[in-house]
Amino acid sequence: MREKITHSEQIYQGRIVNLTIHDVQLPNGAFSKRELVYHPGAVALVALDEARNVLLVRQYRIAADQILLEIPAGTLKPGEDPEVCAIRELQEETGYKPGQIERIGGIFVAPGYTTEFIHLFLATDLTGSVLAMDDDEFIETERLPLEQALARIERGDIIDGKSIAGLMLVARRLGV
Amino acid sequence: MREKITHSEQIYQGRIVNLTIHDVQLPNGAFSKRELVYHPGAVALVALDEARNVLLVRQYRIAADQILLEIPAGTLKPGEDPEVCAIRELQEETGYKPGQIERIGGIFVAPGYTTEFIHLFLATDLTGSVLAMDDDEFIETERLPLEQALARIERGDIIDGKSIAGLMLVARRLGV
Repeated sequence: MREKITHSEQIYQGRIVNLTIHDVQLPNGAFSKRELVYHPGAVALVALDEARNVLLVRQYRIAADQILLEIPAGTLKPGEDPEVCAIRELQEETGYKPGQIERIGGIFVAPGYTTEFIHLFLATDLTGSVLAMDDDEFIETERLPLEQALARIERGDIIDGKSIAGLMLVARRLGV
Repeated sequence: MREKITHSEQIYQGRIVNLTIHDVQLPNGAFSKRELVYHPGAVALVALDEARNVLLVRQYRIAADQILLEIPAGTLKPGEDPEVCAIRELQEETGYKPGQIERIGGIFVAPGYTTEFIHLFLATDLTGSVLAMDDDEFIETERLPLEQALARIERGDIIDGKSIAGLMLVARRLGV
Protein backbone atom coordinates (compact mmCIF):
# COMPACT_ATOMS: atom_id res chain seq x y z
CA MET A 1 0.00 0.00 0.00
CA ARG A 2 3.02 2.31 0.30
CA GLU A 3 4.00 5.00 -2.19
CA LYS A 4 7.56 5.64 -3.36
CA ILE A 5 8.79 9.21 -3.85
CA THR A 6 10.56 9.50 -7.22
CA HIS A 7 11.13 13.27 -7.32
CA SER A 8 10.51 16.21 -4.96
CA GLU A 9 10.31 19.95 -5.47
CA GLN A 10 10.24 22.34 -2.55
CA ILE A 11 7.85 25.17 -3.40
CA TYR A 12 8.03 27.24 -0.23
CA GLN A 13 9.93 27.35 3.02
CA GLY A 14 8.16 29.51 5.55
CA ARG A 15 8.01 30.37 9.23
CA ILE A 16 5.69 27.54 10.19
CA VAL A 17 4.91 25.54 7.05
CA ASN A 18 6.96 24.26 4.13
CA LEU A 19 5.31 23.07 0.94
CA THR A 20 6.82 20.30 -1.20
CA ILE A 21 5.38 18.59 -4.27
CA HIS A 22 6.35 14.95 -4.58
CA ASP A 23 6.08 12.73 -7.62
CA VAL A 24 5.20 9.30 -6.29
CA GLN A 25 4.95 5.81 -7.67
CA LEU A 26 1.87 3.93 -6.48
CA PRO A 27 1.85 0.24 -5.51
CA ASN A 28 0.49 -0.67 -8.97
CA GLY A 29 3.38 1.10 -10.70
CA ALA A 30 1.37 4.16 -11.80
CA PHE A 31 2.59 7.69 -11.04
CA SER A 32 0.87 10.51 -9.17
CA LYS A 33 1.61 13.79 -7.37
CA ARG A 34 1.32 14.60 -3.67
CA GLU A 35 1.16 18.17 -2.37
CA LEU A 36 2.57 18.03 1.16
CA VAL A 37 2.66 20.65 3.85
CA TYR A 38 5.51 20.03 6.29
CA HIS A 39 4.76 21.24 9.81
CA PRO A 40 6.93 20.84 12.94
CA GLY A 41 4.09 19.33 14.98
CA ALA A 42 2.23 20.76 17.92
CA VAL A 43 0.77 20.16 21.35
CA ALA A 44 -2.68 20.84 22.79
CA LEU A 45 -3.95 20.33 26.30
CA VAL A 46 -7.09 19.93 28.31
CA ALA A 47 -6.41 21.87 31.51
CA LEU A 48 -8.79 20.91 34.33
CA ASP A 49 -9.00 22.62 37.70
CA GLU A 50 -10.13 20.94 40.94
CA ALA A 51 -13.78 21.85 40.32
CA ARG A 52 -13.52 20.15 36.89
CA ASN A 53 -13.59 23.41 35.00
CA VAL A 54 -11.67 23.44 31.75
CA LEU A 55 -9.59 26.37 30.48
CA LEU A 56 -10.38 27.34 26.91
CA VAL A 57 -8.96 30.12 24.76
CA ARG A 58 -10.87 32.32 22.38
CA GLN A 59 -8.98 33.81 19.45
CA TYR A 60 -9.53 35.11 15.94
CA ARG A 61 -8.37 32.62 13.30
CA ILE A 62 -7.85 34.14 9.89
CA ALA A 63 -8.05 30.68 8.21
CA ALA A 64 -11.53 30.22 9.67
CA ASP A 65 -12.40 33.93 9.39
CA GLN A 66 -13.97 33.79 12.82
CA ILE A 67 -13.23 33.71 16.52
CA LEU A 68 -12.86 30.11 17.68
CA LEU A 69 -13.04 28.57 21.13
CA GLU A 70 -10.18 26.05 21.51
CA ILE A 71 -8.12 24.21 24.06
CA PRO A 72 -4.68 25.81 24.64
CA ALA A 73 -2.15 24.70 22.03
CA GLY A 74 1.10 25.62 20.37
CA THR A 75 3.68 24.64 17.79
CA LEU A 76 6.74 22.60 18.75
CA LYS A 77 10.14 24.24 18.49
CA PRO A 78 12.77 22.10 16.72
CA GLY A 79 13.72 19.21 19.01
CA GLU A 80 11.43 20.38 21.81
CA ASP A 81 9.91 17.81 24.15
CA PRO A 82 6.11 17.90 23.66
CA GLU A 83 5.41 17.91 27.40
CA VAL A 84 7.76 20.86 27.99
CA CYS A 85 6.06 22.67 25.11
CA ALA A 86 2.61 21.94 26.55
CA ILE A 87 3.53 23.38 29.95
CA ARG A 88 5.00 26.50 28.32
CA GLU A 89 1.98 27.05 26.08
CA LEU A 90 -0.47 26.66 28.95
CA GLN A 91 1.39 29.32 30.93
CA GLU A 92 1.72 31.67 27.96
CA GLU A 93 -1.89 31.39 26.89
CA THR A 94 -3.70 31.21 30.23
CA GLY A 95 -1.32 32.08 33.08
CA TYR A 96 -1.72 28.66 34.70
CA LYS A 97 0.94 26.08 35.52
CA PRO A 98 0.05 22.38 35.83
CA GLY A 99 1.19 20.32 38.82
CA GLN A 100 0.45 17.15 36.83
CA ILE A 101 0.57 16.56 33.12
CA GLU A 102 -0.17 13.34 31.27
CA ARG A 103 -0.18 12.42 27.59
CA ILE A 104 -3.65 11.21 26.55
CA GLY A 105 -3.12 10.66 22.82
CA GLY A 106 -2.30 12.36 19.58
CA ILE A 107 -3.77 13.18 16.18
CA PHE A 108 -2.77 13.72 12.60
CA VAL A 109 -4.87 16.77 11.77
CA ALA A 110 -5.17 16.17 8.02
CA PRO A 111 -3.03 13.23 6.90
CA GLY A 112 -4.05 13.74 3.25
CA TYR A 113 -1.73 16.73 2.91
CA THR A 114 -0.01 17.83 6.13
CA THR A 115 2.56 16.13 8.33
CA GLU A 116 1.27 17.95 11.42
CA PHE A 117 0.80 15.67 14.43
CA ILE A 118 -0.60 17.13 17.65
CA HIS A 119 0.30 15.55 21.00
CA LEU A 120 -2.65 15.78 23.39
CA PHE A 121 -2.23 16.21 27.15
CA LEU A 122 -4.34 16.37 30.27
CA ALA A 123 -3.08 19.01 32.71
CA THR A 124 -4.30 19.08 36.31
CA ASP A 125 -3.33 20.53 39.73
CA LEU A 126 -3.34 23.98 38.20
CA THR A 127 -1.83 26.96 39.97
CA GLY A 128 -1.92 30.56 38.77
CA SER A 129 -4.55 32.98 37.65
CA VAL A 130 -6.05 34.08 34.38
CA LEU A 131 -3.78 36.48 32.54
CA ALA A 132 -5.01 39.98 31.87
CA MET A 133 -5.07 40.55 28.12
CA ASP A 134 -2.70 43.30 27.10
CA ASP A 135 -2.21 45.19 23.86
CA ASP A 136 -0.03 42.54 22.29
CA GLU A 137 -2.13 39.51 23.13
CA PHE A 138 -5.24 38.56 21.28
CA ILE A 139 -6.28 35.53 23.25
CA GLU A 140 -9.00 35.51 25.91
CA THR A 141 -9.17 32.72 28.44
CA GLU A 142 -12.52 31.22 29.33
CA ARG A 143 -13.10 28.82 32.21
CA LEU A 144 -16.16 26.60 32.16
CA PRO A 145 -17.32 23.24 33.54
CA LEU A 146 -16.20 20.26 31.42
CA GLU A 147 -19.86 19.26 30.98
CA GLN A 148 -20.61 22.68 29.49
CA ALA A 149 -17.65 22.38 27.12
CA LEU A 150 -19.05 19.03 25.96
CA ALA A 151 -22.48 20.59 25.51
CA ARG A 152 -20.86 23.32 23.39
CA ILE A 153 -19.31 20.66 21.16
CA GLU A 154 -22.72 19.05 20.72
CA ARG A 155 -24.29 22.43 19.91
CA GLY A 156 -21.60 23.20 17.33
CA ASP A 157 -20.07 26.09 19.32
CA ILE A 158 -16.71 24.31 19.52
CA ILE A 159 -15.66 23.35 15.98
CA ASP A 160 -11.91 22.98 16.32
CA GLY A 161 -10.78 19.41 15.65
CA LYS A 162 -8.02 19.07 18.29
CA SER A 163 -10.30 20.61 20.93
CA ILE A 164 -13.11 18.15 20.22
CA ALA A 165 -10.68 15.20 20.24
CA GLY A 166 -8.98 16.32 23.46
CA LEU A 167 -12.15 17.14 25.39
CA MET A 168 -13.88 13.93 24.30
CA LEU A 169 -10.86 11.81 25.26
CA VAL A 170 -10.87 13.37 28.73
CA ALA A 171 -14.65 12.97 29.05
CA ARG A 172 -14.42 9.24 28.30
CA ARG A 173 -11.53 8.83 30.69
CA LEU A 174 -13.47 10.52 33.51
CA GLY A 175 -16.77 8.87 32.62
CA VAL A 176 -18.41 12.28 32.07
CA MET B 1 -9.53 40.60 17.89
CA ARG B 2 -9.73 40.49 14.08
CA GLU B 3 -6.81 40.86 11.71
CA LYS B 4 -6.86 42.95 8.52
CA ILE B 5 -5.15 41.67 5.37
CA THR B 6 -2.99 44.45 3.87
CA HIS B 7 -1.25 42.47 1.11
CA SER B 8 -1.42 38.92 -0.26
CA GLU B 9 0.91 36.85 -2.39
CA GLN B 10 -0.17 33.55 -3.88
CA ILE B 11 2.77 31.15 -3.73
CA TYR B 12 1.24 28.03 -5.19
CA GLN B 13 -1.97 26.89 -6.82
CA GLY B 14 -2.24 23.12 -6.81
CA ARG B 15 -4.63 20.27 -7.33
CA ILE B 16 -5.95 20.25 -3.77
CA VAL B 17 -4.20 23.03 -1.87
CA ASN B 18 -3.29 26.62 -2.62
CA LEU B 19 -0.76 28.52 -0.52
CA THR B 20 -1.00 32.27 0.05
CA ILE B 21 1.08 34.50 2.30
CA HIS B 22 -0.83 37.40 3.79
CA ASP B 23 0.56 40.51 5.43
CA VAL B 24 -1.88 41.34 8.21
CA GLN B 25 -2.44 44.20 10.59
CA LEU B 26 -3.17 43.09 14.14
CA PRO B 27 -5.77 44.75 16.40
CA ASN B 28 -3.00 46.76 18.12
CA GLY B 29 -1.83 48.18 14.79
CA ALA B 30 1.31 46.00 14.51
CA PHE B 31 2.01 43.96 11.37
CA SER B 32 2.58 40.23 10.94
CA LYS B 33 2.52 37.50 8.30
CA ARG B 34 0.13 34.55 7.95
CA GLU B 35 0.93 31.48 5.85
CA LEU B 36 -2.43 30.11 4.74
CA VAL B 37 -3.29 26.88 2.99
CA TYR B 38 -6.56 27.17 1.08
CA HIS B 39 -8.45 23.89 0.85
CA PRO B 40 -11.91 23.27 -0.69
CA GLY B 41 -13.22 21.53 2.44
CA ALA B 42 -14.15 17.93 2.97
CA VAL B 43 -16.61 15.45 4.40
CA ALA B 44 -16.16 12.45 6.67
CA LEU B 45 -18.69 9.98 7.91
CA VAL B 46 -19.33 7.42 10.58
CA ALA B 47 -21.15 4.60 8.78
CA LEU B 48 -22.96 2.27 11.18
CA ASP B 49 -24.68 -0.96 10.23
CA GLU B 50 -27.64 -2.49 12.07
CA ALA B 51 -25.38 -4.47 14.40
CA ARG B 52 -23.62 -1.20 15.32
CA ASN B 53 -20.48 -2.06 13.40
CA VAL B 54 -18.62 0.89 11.94
CA LEU B 55 -16.93 0.90 8.52
CA LEU B 56 -13.34 2.11 8.64
CA VAL B 57 -10.79 2.45 5.85
CA ARG B 58 -7.13 1.62 6.04
CA GLN B 59 -4.77 3.45 3.71
CA TYR B 60 -1.17 4.56 3.41
CA ARG B 61 -0.76 8.27 4.09
CA ILE B 62 2.49 9.69 2.82
CA ALA B 63 2.19 12.75 5.13
CA ALA B 64 2.07 10.41 8.14
CA ASP B 65 4.45 7.88 6.54
CA GLN B 66 2.26 5.07 7.78
CA ILE B 67 -0.96 3.20 7.17
CA LEU B 68 -3.81 4.88 9.07
CA LEU B 69 -7.22 3.60 10.08
CA GLU B 70 -9.79 6.32 9.39
CA ILE B 71 -13.47 6.91 8.85
CA PRO B 72 -14.41 7.28 5.13
CA ALA B 73 -13.83 10.82 3.89
CA GLY B 74 -13.24 12.89 0.80
CA THR B 75 -12.65 16.36 -0.57
CA LEU B 76 -15.54 18.53 -1.74
CA LYS B 77 -15.77 19.36 -5.43
CA PRO B 78 -16.40 23.07 -6.15
CA GLY B 79 -19.99 23.90 -5.16
CA GLU B 80 -20.77 20.34 -4.14
CA ASP B 81 -23.33 19.72 -1.41
CA PRO B 82 -21.51 18.07 1.53
CA GLU B 83 -24.19 15.41 2.00
CA VAL B 84 -24.05 14.41 -1.68
CA CYS B 85 -20.27 14.24 -1.40
CA ALA B 86 -20.49 12.08 1.74
CA ILE B 87 -22.81 9.56 0.04
CA ARG B 88 -20.49 9.39 -2.99
CA GLU B 89 -17.36 8.94 -0.90
CA LEU B 90 -18.91 6.19 1.21
CA GLN B 91 -19.84 4.27 -1.95
CA GLU B 92 -16.46 4.82 -3.59
CA GLU B 93 -14.44 3.86 -0.54
CA THR B 94 -16.49 1.04 0.92
CA GLY B 95 -19.17 -0.09 -1.56
CA TYR B 96 -22.01 0.82 0.83
CA LYS B 97 -24.90 3.21 0.31
CA PRO B 98 -26.65 4.83 3.27
CA GLY B 99 -30.46 4.81 3.60
CA GLN B 100 -30.19 7.61 6.17
CA ILE B 101 -27.59 10.32 6.53
CA GLU B 102 -27.48 13.05 9.14
CA ARG B 103 -25.02 15.88 9.80
CA ILE B 104 -23.53 15.54 13.29
CA GLY B 105 -21.06 18.43 13.30
CA GLY B 106 -17.97 19.80 11.67
CA ILE B 107 -14.35 20.67 12.40
CA PHE B 108 -11.63 23.04 11.34
CA VAL B 109 -8.69 20.64 11.15
CA ALA B 110 -5.92 23.17 11.84
CA PRO B 111 -7.28 26.72 11.97
CA GLY B 112 -3.79 28.15 12.55
CA TYR B 113 -2.88 27.69 8.88
CA THR B 114 -5.50 25.87 6.79
CA THR B 115 -9.01 26.84 5.76
CA GLU B 116 -10.08 23.18 5.59
CA PHE B 117 -13.39 22.49 7.29
CA ILE B 118 -14.71 18.91 7.43
CA HIS B 119 -18.45 18.27 7.61
CA LEU B 120 -19.15 15.19 9.75
CA PHE B 121 -22.05 12.82 9.07
CA LEU B 122 -23.64 9.75 10.58
CA ALA B 123 -24.72 7.26 7.90
CA THR B 124 -27.08 4.38 8.73
CA ASP B 125 -29.41 1.87 7.00
CA LEU B 126 -26.48 0.70 4.91
CA THR B 127 -26.95 -1.45 1.84
CA GLY B 128 -24.21 -2.96 -0.27
CA SER B 129 -21.15 -5.07 0.31
CA VAL B 130 -17.49 -4.46 0.89
CA LEU B 131 -15.67 -3.66 -2.35
CA ALA B 132 -12.98 -5.99 -3.53
CA MET B 133 -9.73 -4.03 -3.74
CA ASP B 134 -8.44 -3.88 -7.29
CA ASP B 135 -5.13 -2.78 -8.77
CA ASP B 136 -6.01 0.90 -8.79
CA GLU B 137 -7.38 1.15 -5.26
CA PHE B 138 -5.23 1.27 -2.21
CA ILE B 139 -7.91 1.40 0.43
CA GLU B 140 -9.01 -1.57 2.52
CA THR B 141 -12.34 -1.53 4.32
CA GLU B 142 -12.54 -2.81 7.87
CA ARG B 143 -15.78 -3.40 9.74
CA LEU B 144 -15.73 -3.54 13.52
CA PRO B 145 -18.05 -2.91 16.48
CA LEU B 146 -18.28 0.77 17.48
CA GLU B 147 -17.09 -0.16 20.98
CA GLN B 148 -13.94 -1.69 19.49
CA ALA B 149 -13.30 1.41 17.40
CA LEU B 150 -13.54 3.49 20.60
CA ALA B 151 -11.15 1.10 22.34
CA ARG B 152 -8.73 1.54 19.43
CA ILE B 153 -8.85 5.30 19.90
CA GLU B 154 -8.06 4.88 23.59
CA ARG B 155 -5.17 2.51 22.77
CA GLY B 156 -3.74 4.97 20.22
CA ASP B 157 -4.43 2.74 17.21
CA ILE B 158 -6.70 5.38 15.64
CA ILE B 159 -4.79 8.67 15.48
CA ASP B 160 -6.62 10.54 12.76
CA GLY B 161 -8.26 13.71 14.07
CA LYS B 162 -11.52 13.66 12.05
CA SER B 163 -12.01 9.96 12.85
CA ILE B 164 -11.63 10.51 16.60
CA ALA B 165 -14.00 13.50 16.50
CA GLY B 166 -16.60 11.67 14.40
CA LEU B 167 -16.55 8.41 16.35
CA MET B 168 -16.66 10.19 19.71
CA LEU B 169 -19.57 12.39 18.63
CA VAL B 170 -21.52 9.30 17.59
CA ALA B 171 -20.58 7.48 20.80
CA ARG B 172 -21.94 10.31 22.95
CA ARG B 173 -25.08 10.54 20.87
CA LEU B 174 -25.75 6.81 21.27
CA GLY B 175 -24.66 6.72 24.92
CA VAL B 176 -21.93 4.16 24.13
